[in-house]
Amino acid sequence: MNKDNKEGLDHKRHTLAHLLAAAVLELWPDTKHAIGPTVDDGFYYDFEFTKPIGEEDLEKIEAKMQELLPTWGSFDYSEMSPDEAKKEYEDNPYKLELIDEIAGKGEQVTFYACAGFSDLCRGGHNENPAKDIKPDSFKLDRLSGAYWRGSEENQMLTRIYGLAFDTKDELGDYRKQREEAIKRDHKKLGPALDLFTFSDLVGSGLPLWTPKGTLVRNLLDTFVWELRTEQGYVLVDIPHITKKDLYITSGHWDKFKDELFQIKTREGHEFVMKPMNCPHHTQIYARKLWSYRELPQRYASTTKCYRDEQSGELAGISRTRSLTQDDAHVFCRTSQVKEEFLKIWDIVHEFYGAFGFEIEVWLSRHDPEKMENYLGEEKSWEEAESVLEAIAKEKGVDYVDAPGEAAFYGPKLDFMAKDSLGREWQVATIQLDMNMPERFDLTCVNEKGEKERIVMIHAAIMGSIERFLSILIEHTAGSLPTWLAPVQVKVLPIGEAHMDFAKEVVASLQDEGLRAELDDSDESLGKKIRNWKLEKAPYAVVLGDKEVADKKLTIESRDGDDKENLSVDEFITKLKKEVGEKK
Amino acid sequence: MNKDNKEGLDHKRHTLAHLLAAAVLELWPDTKHAIGPTVDDGFYYDFEFTKPIGEEDLEKIEAKMQELLPTWGSFDYSEMSPDEAKKEYEDNPYKLELIDEIAGKGEQVTFYACAGFSDLCRGGHNENPAKDIKPDSFKLDRLSGAYWRGSEENQMLTRIYGLAFDTKDELGDYRKQREEAIKRDHKKLGPALDLFTFSDLVGSGLPLWTPKGTLVRNLLDTFVWELRTEQGYVLVDIPHITKKDLYITSGHWDKFKDELFQIKTREGHEFVMKPMNCPHHTQIYARKLWSYRELPQRYASTTKCYRDEQSGELAGISRTRSLTQDDAHVFCRTSQVKEEFLKIWDIVHEFYGAFGFEIEVWLSRHDPEKMENYLGEEKSWEEAESVLEAIAKEKGVDYVDAPGEAAFYGPKLDFMAKDSLGREWQVATIQLDMNMPERFDLTCVNEKGEKERIVMIHAAIMGSIERFLSILIEHTAGSLPTWLAPVQVKVLPIGEAHMDFAKEVVASLQDEGLRAELDDSDESLGKKIRNWKLEKAPYAVVLGDKEVADKKLTIESRDGDDKENLSVDEFITKLKKEVGEKK
Repeated sequence: MNKDNKEGLDHKRHTLAHLLAAAVLELWPDTKHAIGPTVDDGFYYDFEFTKPIGEEDLEKIEAKMQELLPTWGSFDYSEMSPDEAKKEYEDNPYKLELIDEIAGKGEQVTFYACAGFSDLCRGGHNENPAKDIKPDSFKLDRLSGAYWRGSEENQMLTRIYGLAFDTKDELGDYRKQREEAIKRDHKKLGPALDLFTFSDLVGSGLPLWTPKGTLVRNLLDTFVWELRTEQGYVLVDIPHITKKDLYITSGHWDKFKDELFQIKTREGHEFVMKPMNCPHHTQIYARKLWSYRELPQRYASTTKCYRDEQSGELAGISRTRSLTQDDAHVFCRTSQVKEEFLKIWDIVHEFYGAFGFEIEVWLSRHDPEKMENYLGEEKSWEEAESVLEAIAKEKGVDYVDAPGEAAFYGPKLDFMAKDSLGREWQVATIQLDMNMPERFDLTCVNEKGEKERIVMIHAAIMGSIERFLSILIEHTAGSLPTWLAPVQVKVLPIGEAHMDFAKEVVASLQDEGLRAELDDSDESLGKKIRNWKLEKAPYAVVLGDKEVADKKLTIESRDGDDKENLSVDEFITKLKKEVGEKK
Repeated sequence: MNKDNKEGLDHKRHTLAHLLAAAVLELWPDTKHAIGPTVDDGFYYDFEFTKPIGEEDLEKIEAKMQELLPTWGSFDYSEMSPDEAKKEYEDNPYKLELIDEIAGKGEQVTFYACAGFSDLCRGGHNENPAKDIKPDSFKLDRLSGAYWRGSEENQMLTRIYGLAFDTKDELGDYRKQREEAIKRDHKKLGPALDLFTFSDLVGSGLPLWTPKGTLVRNLLDTFVWELRTEQGYVLVDIPHITKKDLYITSGHWDKFKDELFQIKTREGHEFVMKPMNCPHHTQIYARKLWSYRELPQRYASTTKCYRDEQSGELAGISRTRSLTQDDAHVFCRTSQVKEEFLKIWDIVHEFYGAFGFEIEVWLSRHDPEKMENYLGEEKSWEEAESVLEAIAKEKGVDYVDAPGEAAFYGPKLDFMAKDSLGREWQVATIQLDMNMPERFDLTCVNEKGEKERIVMIHAAIMGSIERFLSILIEHTAGSLPTWLAPVQVKVLPIGEAHMDFAKEVVASLQDEGLRAELDDSDESLGKKIRNWKLEKAPYAVVLGDKEVADKKLTIESRDGDDKENLSVDEFITKLKKEVGEKK
């Protein structure tokens, strides 16, 4: 969507907020209307009704809006003195408060009127609503309670939300996508699939990982680790706390101290829980003097970080107080940056590719107009960015050039993943860091026997396992690929007579390292199948008389593919192939 | 050592402290003697000298002790009034302070004298020192500074330490063992072998694990996990913090709050870093209602715990502020306790057996005289202990019966490991917990459809990886077994001409998952071999003209076994066998 369209849409939504207020006041003239801004998917207006309305009234209001719309030709602009304006609204305390506020700031009080409905307003509407707004491109959506100005001490008002897009199709797509997103909400699906849980005693933002969830986390982590180990990474291990001094040296203390969990020990030491891992990793690098021949050193840790997030910001596992980073840092010479970036690039593409995410690359550069925001000389920035550019070109991708998007310590490549609902998520980033090696005085001894400043590359792949998993759950609607599914095969004997064979099948699969589970409940086959579908295991094996007699399995797939009849060995081969190919 | 011997030795050490003071006062009559107690390996006495003495004076003092000893026939006991006593010591502020203290408590001031040397003393000596003390069974050991009464505000005194045992041989053994222990000190060996490091910026008690150390940690953890997975354990994952509420409910808050790292968030929540994992694990169990058919649930986590240890208590990696527990908890019915204990018993024996530790088992029971110290009815304790006893008997071990050594919440089996220096360490414990399930109201639904209280079993194997590794480093003197050694084979080409074959050999070993490293330095072969020995890698492969020509490897073992000549394939087979057998 280009900027003009976006502004047009905003004008339209603003106009519709007026139209909504006009319709409500026509239907219930005693209503007091308060304020009606636009939002990301439409608009709302807050009202004080004399008697409560319900969801069922939305239709009536919308019908009234449709009735009025053809009469809305154009807006008339007018100015009033605060006193005049207050006379217009003598019974409406909300408008009176707004007028006082505008006047208090010394601003002009302005009104916009259309087809006889006039509202206190700063402007920004369609030229000709009747012509510009398609009647089927908007829809009233829902009601909610909202305190006037968001404060619990004020009057509770009724907020009416509307959706509005350029066309009927766009409105339909949005509603369909939203419905799908609600069904896929990881906050519901995660606990339903028994992947994680929260406890009131432990606290919000601190997920507890069940056996199934832990298995999935570890499989993801192992996948990243397999890709890294091919590229020469090694694991290191660090504590979750540090003296504050580490972050004073790194510079994080000044920037992030409010978001850090702080600890004062009984001896009076000031400790901090780590919100990231780079400063700790520098201290492992700094344990000895390195020869250039020993570089790069590539340190990886899968480890939890802690951030003092505000309760209102927490969201399932996508925003938590404890998050697990699959973090890595490369300590290398400037001359090695390109090769190291390419290695990480390959890991990122292989990892995200395995899940069917489309990846878009951003080259986040410095803003030449604002060199004061960045560390170091412009020349070294240009050199570093030209290396990143060369990498993007060598890989033949259409990258997005993003000046001004660099970190203050260096340029980066950012990877955006598009999920199955078309939503974009920033996932991995590869960052070049010229700052921390300076602050921690990290060097190697070069060919001439002199100390040479090195650089660092930050290279998390998932970023946070929690956030990645929240995206993956919604991307797959909880149907994790076979290699990652906590239960890969559910074995469903129809009756008691088929139990022995069922146990045999489960044991054969488990012996081959496959995650098979027996449903030995007393439920009917229908119920067993419904349970299997809720669990979203990739395959169910139904076993009855025929299967026991033939020693063949009837295999159903959760994707609704045709049923297959396979021997146990054939099924094992099929499953191992899927797992091996990360399907 | 039985109790009588122990008391005899204590009397002897006490006597020798007197003899030391007598010798010092004879040599330097102006010296003020302060206090002279016994310690674990001998005795010491604190003195204020008029001019400093040095290590070289110890010989002179010891000679004087030897000279006096034959004259020390027996001790004479006498009592004095405080005033009389203070007259004896009018120039000695230390004795004056002690006399005031004794008198202040209303106790009798008593003296013991031998061969003319009388000292303020409570008694406990040999009957006849000249006869009872073998002249070659003690030795003055070292000097150190010590503040009077341990306070920095007091006078600094000179402390003279002596070693004393029953016989010359025991003294010799002790000195040899101590020398060996110093050589094996993990605080020196760990960094020398590049297993871990500390950083002033991160803080003391917070080890940072290098690539080699992390590898060793992970191999140990994987070993435990392999043993556990055979017994049906599953992994769960938990955050390192929790609301304080969790520990108020569990009862840990009252008992341990001073040792907890506490956090206040910006919103005012009170969080705590976990010092153990059981309360978190209960919250994973508590996420759903369990049928008895789903029990036991066996949850394992390898995760760091944090304790606010005082700086003076920290010691390398054996006592740290961050420690990694290989923790597990079994949630089961009382009827399942025996079987679950047996499973853990097997894991403990297999794990410690692999390292050649001798294991002694303690049955830590309640003290029937002090039921008020324990939770629950005596009857249920007796039942629980009889189960533990049956297990120990079934395993046919001579366990140590230890009434009064139980935890307040249940009896336990404690495992003591004897290391290669004969030192004993408490390692694993299996604890039955009847308390926490009560506090967290943990249940299952039994055969009758009723809620039934369950029990918990605590089952860490290594306890803390850090502490276990400190024991293992000292037990092996840093020569970790092949399967665990971070570098298993060091490949040492004699010259440039042998480099290509050396690289080939390293690649062949690495392809088979073996940890081979090339020494491609320009050093002489002698130096390369010395470096290899310092690194304590199990094998070195020396490659010269003959080896390149024959395509055979000359293999040296760090144990000093005869050199072997093997093809690369034969060597791989040998190594894989060792690794497979955990040698």
